[in-house]
Amino acid sequence: MERETIETPLLAEVCVPLEQQSSEEQQVLRSIQSNRTSQVAIVGANVCPIESLDYEIFENDFFKQDWRNCGCGHILQYIFLKWTLCFLLGILTALVGFFNNLAVENVAGIKFVITSNLMRTNKYFQAFAVFASFNFFLTLFSSIITACIGPAAAGSGIPEVKAYLNGVDAPEILSLRTLIIKIIGSIGAVSASLNVGKAGPMVHTGACIASLLSQGGSKKYHLTCKWLRYFKNDRDRRDLVTCGSAAGIAAAFRAPVGGVLFALEEASSWWRSALLWRTFFTTATTAVVLRALIDFCKSDKCGLFGKGGLIMFDVNSVNITYQLVDLPPAIVLGVIGGILGSFYNYLLDKVLRVYSLINEKKPPYRLLLACTVSICTSCCLFGLPWLAPCRKCPTDTIEECPTIGRSGNFKKFQCPPGHYNDLASLFFNTNDDAIRNLFSLGTDNEFHPLSILIFFFATYILGILSYGIVVPSGLFVPVILTGATYGRLVGILMGSRSTLNHGLYAILGAASLLGGSMRMTVSLCVILLELTNDLLMLPLVMLVLLISKTVADAFNGNIYDLIMQIKGLPYLEAHAEPYMKNLTAGDVVVGPLHIFNGVERVCNIVHLLRATKHNGFPVVDEPPNSESPVLFGLVLRAHLLMLLKKREFSHTPALVGVDAFKHFSFDDFAKRGSGKGDQIEDIELSDEEMEMFVDLHPFANTSPYTVVETMSLAKALILFRQVGLRHLLVVPKTHGRAPVVGILTRHDFMPEHVLGLHPYLKGSQWKRMRFQLFSLAQLFLGWCG
Amino acid sequence: MERETIETPLLAEVCVPLEQQSSEEQQVLRSIQSNRTSQVAIVGANVCPIESLDYEIFENDFFKQDWRNCGCGHILQYIFLKWTLCFLLGILTALVGFFNNLAVENVAGIKFVITSNLMRTNKYFQAFAVFASFNFFLTLFSSIITACIGPAAAGSGIPEVKAYLNGVDAPEILSLRTLIIKIIGSIGAVSASLNVGKAGPMVHTGACIASLLSQGGSKKYHLTCKWLRYFKNDRDRRDLVTCGSAAGIAAAFRAPVGGVLFALEEASSWWRSALLWRTFFTTATTAVVLRALIDFCKSDKCGLFGKGGLIMFDVNSVNITYQLVDLPPAIVLGVIGGILGSFYNYLLDKVLRVYSLINEKKPPYRLLLACTVSICTSCCLFGLPWLAPCRKCPTDTIEECPTIGRSGNFKKFQCPPGHYNDLASLFFNTNDDAIRNLFSLGTDNEFHPLSILIFFFATYILGILSYGIVVPSGLFVPVILTGATYGRLVGILMGSRSTLNHGLYAILGAASLLGGSMRMTVSLCVILLELTNDLLMLPLVMLVLLISKTVADAFNGNIYDLIMQIKGLPYLEAHAEPYMKNLTAGDVVVGPLHIFNGVERVCNIVHLLRATKHNGFPVVDEPPNSESPVLFGLVLRAHLLMLLKKREFSHTPALVGVDAFKHFSFDDFAKRGSGKGDQIEDIELSDEEMEMFVDLHPFANTSPYTVVETMSLAKALILFRQVGLRHLLVVPKTHGRAPVVGILTRHDFMPEHVLGLHPYLKGSQWKRMRFQLFSLAQLFLGWCG
Repeated sequence: MERETIETPLLAEVCVPLEQQSSEEQQVLRSIQSNRTSQVAIVGANVCPIESLDYEIFENDFFKQDWRNCGCGHILQYIFLKWTLCFLLGILTALVGFFNNLAVENVAGIKFVITSNLMRTNKYFQAFAVFASFNFFLTLFSSIITACIGPAAAGSGIPEVKAYLNGVDAPEILSLRTLIIKIIGSIGAVSASLNVGKAGPMVHTGACIASLLSQGGSKKYHLTCKWLRYFKNDRDRRDLVTCGSAAGIAAAFRAPVGGVLFALEEASSWWRSALLWRTFFTTATTAVVLRALIDFCKSDKCGLFGKGGLIMFDVNSVNITYQLVDLPPAIVLGVIGGILGSFYNYLLDKVLRVYSLINEKKPPYRLLLACTVSICTSCCLFGLPWLAPCRKCPTDTIEECPTIGRSGNFKKFQCPPGHYNDLASLFFNTNDDAIRNLFSLGTDNEFHPLSILIFFFATYILGILSYGIVVPSGLFVPVILTGATYGRLVGILMGSRSTLNHGLYAILGAASLLGGSMRMTVSLCVILLELTNDLLMLPLVMLVLLISKTVADAFNGNIYDLIMQIKGLPYLEAHAEPYMKNLTAGDVVVGPLHIFNGVERVCNIVHLLRATKHNGFPVVDEPPNSESPVLFGLVLRAHLLMLLKKREFSHTPALVGVDAFKHFSFDDFAKRGSGKGDQIEDIELSDEEMEMFVDLHPFANTSPYTVVETMSLAKALILFRQVGLRHLLVVPKTHGRAPVVGILTRHDFMPEHVLGLHPYLKGSQWKRMRFQLFSLAQLFLGWCG
Repeated sequence: MERETIETPLLAEVCVPLEQQSSEEQQVLRSIQSNRTSQVAIVGANVCPIESLDYEIFENDFFKQDWRNCGCGHILQYIFLKWTLCFLLGILTALVGFFNNLAVENVAGIKFVITSNLMRTNKYFQAFAVFASFNFFLTLFSSIITACIGPAAAGSGIPEVKAYLNGVDAPEILSLRTLIIKIIGSIGAVSASLNVGKAGPMVHTGACIASLLSQGGSKKYHLTCKWLRYFKNDRDRRDLVTCGSAAGIAAAFRAPVGGVLFALEEASSWWRSALLWRTFFTTATTAVVLRALIDFCKSDKCGLFGKGGLIMFDVNSVNITYQLVDLPPAIVLGVIGGILGSFYNYLLDKVLRVYSLINEKKPPYRLLLACTVSICTSCCLFGLPWLAPCRKCPTDTIEECPTIGRSGNFKKFQCPPGHYNDLASLFFNTNDDAIRNLFSLGTDNEFHPLSILIFFFATYILGILSYGIVVPSGLFVPVILTGATYGRLVGILMGSRSTLNHGLYAILGAASLLGGSMRMTVSLCVILLELTNDLLMLPLVMLVLLISKTVADAFNGNIYDLIMQIKGLPYLEAHAEPYMKNLTAGDVVVGPLHIFNGVERVCNIVHLLRATKHNGFPVVDEPPNSESPVLFGLVLRAHLLMLLKKREFSHTPALVGVDAFKHFSFDDFAKRGSGKGDQIEDIELSDEEMEMFVDLHPFANTSPYTVVETMSLAKALILFRQVGLRHLLVVPKTHGRAPVVGILTRHDFMPEHVLGLHPYLKGSQWKRMRFQLFSLAQLFLGWCG
């Protein structure tokens, strides 16, 4: 069988395999290995345990050795640092969030003030020119820096963070460069009145800050700190990034509990109770700092920020009551919201696939796309309000009418004094102000149904068209905006049949579209509650979210999953596909398998590392008192590279044992930042060195997780996913063969891979989502039969 | 080595082991087994997958067989039922919660009305007699039914539910009897003015309802339903019980989001995103139904309920502001709250250990204890208010003074008209009303510091003394009550130095004591928010919770964990103890290991089942072309019992194969209700039958999870805990020995077991909690050194 092949043809040519070495040499090796086997027995000692080290790399002798030397001071450092980092993360995320809002409010504010002043003197054409060119150049600036400096900063960033937390290390995704571009680009894009949000970029920003903190700043600037070595492993970094994503939502919506739930429900793939507490601490810090900063700005110290254009929603509500009669409209709202949300996802998917053809080309094409969208947006925002007739200011409102500042429900636009343009109040504003206008209570008669309808279609389409361009762009705000408009529309259509305020309809509409598009439940619910500060709405919001998610799930998937699919990120789902129950682990293992001997020739290692891209290799011993080889452990590519780099070779195939460690420090084996790490091509070895030997025993994980080849793939997936592995060894059912038949990695569990190997399963593939709708129909048609 | 022993001496005497059978018979067996091995190869077929079946029992041929026959109608039934059960669970829990409150308000209300009327006519002695005897008989009633009918209903129930969700099936814990006793007993105990809560019992009630629903009602009354067969497995039942516990909190505090978070943070041990949604749906249903019922009661249709004594808190707050100057008192509040909370746990632990000596004796002793506590409580409640001087009614309050009904801050008690007794307003009320009094705003001058101090000590001590008696009793309400008092006390001490209202101090105090005692964070925070309907308090509540939990963690553990320890429930923690990293899986395996052959003699099975209490046995084959035996799979005790009961034996050691299945139905192998199941003693077999053979192959799980014996115990625990196993097979590192060296179960991972086997580790045992305090001190003293 092919998968049992140990040596590739390439290797066989260049190096002499162990089996062909002189029998004397073999004898020496075997006897050493037999000693070795007993030496590996684990000693109970006062090892100083640092809880959070990865289980994947944990069990090799080197780490055991290092831990034995670490005193309790190290644990203290670790605990202290863990909380300090979370605290810093919370503060930094809050500062960035505040800076974001401050910048957007000021840049967009200046733009709107200049345009409004021109319009008040009836210079409409100049006003449009100023408005459009402001938008154009801001978009151009954002897209240039994004396309040329940090392409990883484009888009929402939530799918990438979600994939990272699932174990996918995309290059550059959490780097300093991406962070800076994300912040500046997001400010530019939002200020340019594009229909994009800043919640998604905030999540990505929080994740970047977390990753950089855990690396101890950027390596380039030598800001790294010795203390941080405990965080140079996947698990601690992942935990901190989870906290960062929660802090991002907390900063974007001032919703600390919502942030925690977002991290739990959407972002993270593994969750522990301890993490809940730490995430909570981070978001609490963010919320407190943010509140202090906003309070500071209330006294006009922050330019246009705080003058009414508080970008964080602060919808104060009176006590709200609703009766049973309000349930049917809420249900309708949920159903239609679900359909609209899944249609949103569908359209976005299609548009992104078209855009990706353009975005694959050179930067100028991408910039052209971004500029086109900017011009279209400017035209819509400035042009469409002219369709709405001027309305007379209501007399009973406490609000100034028409509003002279930027915020408020009454925009003057082209209207004569004492009148306002309701469509301009929505269009000619930042998205946050528009949302606040829609959410405001007691404004049932201030928007004309037609204005709302126009605004709904415009935002729905602009939101879809704006996402894929090469600027940092979030999805939350456009979806909330569109949903709130749709909710108001339903409220207007219900008229007096419902006792609910139209502002509440807007909140429910936002909930329904969010549920239909993002498919989160509890986290969205809590975010909306924290946004609107109204707990009494809870049951209605819950109902709407549940219905819209259920309806939308019948059509397609979560928007972030769709984006991940387009980006080709190998996200590992928690549940197994049904057909995986009919396959065994052995069925998906594809050869050839590359195996190292316990004491291996350097040239073998070098050639194998050059020939393959694998990240883990089984290490096999041949004990003298047994015919069949025995699995010793698993050695990682990164560790092999480090061994080669340090040139700790011996001329004879001898066991080095614990002496090997004195040439290595903990840092040598610490996890590098994402995407970084040595390359085999960079390591130059002399011919003499190539003929030497290296003892892999101390550096191999001696007890990797294994499954038997007859185990069903679904069961193997459960182990792989739950324990959070990168390599899972498949061992044979019967002895007498090679001690390992293959290695399963993330890619082997991907449906595309499995179905590629077993195409006959495609027919029986059970499309969960679409099937549900069909089956529900069946259910109601022929239940009794 | 002992652990490799296959046969116990007992068996060897009675039965002829396979090895000693005639060589002919062996030959037949071996050749059959070799056929068998190939026959077992898994076929890819259009198996109809039901996602939720247990992975533990999933992979035996029988289940594969059954699923091949199940059409898509079954999946529909499953999905439909899953949601219907959650919906029913939500409604039923809400109904029970409402009924509970209705009953308590009416029973306790009548008691207080009669007593108050007597006091108004100055018949103080009669008033006390009525009050005390009411309390006495209610307590006696509750404790009699609890002690004699359903002892499992005593206490909070949260530890038991938590243990159940961790995989510990305590008998009777989720039965119909327990449910009924829990509901009635809780009403009695709370009405008897004992300082016990009803939130814990509500969680237990929710869990019981969930368990009974998943069983399809009680077996005894033949209410079981064929459709429910999909739920007769651990996983689906556990999911529903998780939903039930969330619904319990939702019903107790009208806090749907808090309920979900409680289930996530405290109750459940395994969590999936899908569960979040389902839990949310259940609590949303509960909240909506509860709201409808309360609205119904607003029009005086429910007796004394709703007349002001709304037992669900409904603290409406004005807009609250706080400044930076309020942070120091909040921090102090948190620190002292943490200390008080952990001291509460410490005292409760001691008291429970003393009580357990009494509770181990016959029911009369337990009843005596309960009655003693009741009399003490009555004396306190009636006696202590006499210590407080009468205070003149304030003139500027809108509330009636003194309050004639039961609710409100101004109780007349013994005072002359126009005066009130502030201590009586707290003591001479239901706990819920007392909490509302403490939480009320604008009442800074209505309580005398001394009254608050007396009340604090009284509730602190009564809360600890009341928990352990043999009635259903929750911990939430006493802790909230004590904490609120403590918070008010701090508020009074702060005086005018703080801008915070005393009602807010009460909320923060409740948060700090809850955090110090129960150690939850996000869920408590959200529950308090939903209780008080005040989102602006969020950052302060978070801060206080974080501080108090941190402080308290330095001293001892979570109160529920302490109770679980006292009850001896083997709760499996998610993290490994540090010393487990120095042990291997082989180190904790204790012999003898009991193994079955693929085709086994009936007498062997019967005797082994009688001799041991093990729940899983490895099945080993000896293929003809190999010297060493091969692990075939794992067979469960329950399945063996079913095989024996059905008497599907053959006279010769022949393989039955798939034909075996025609005599069995899916229901035969369905998981029984907790604690139920066949006993080996109930199965009578004739001598002839005892000499027959049974083919275990179709009923064995062919690919159980395995670990190599040299894997560290910590790593094995991660696998065991994350995947949620009951049995983990330990296989040898080298071949040539038995194919399995032992089975790890939950008990093998318990610290007591491990430390019992390796007592030398005790010295190096790293007490996480206490150590932290010590190390933090060290940290600040000698950080730079």
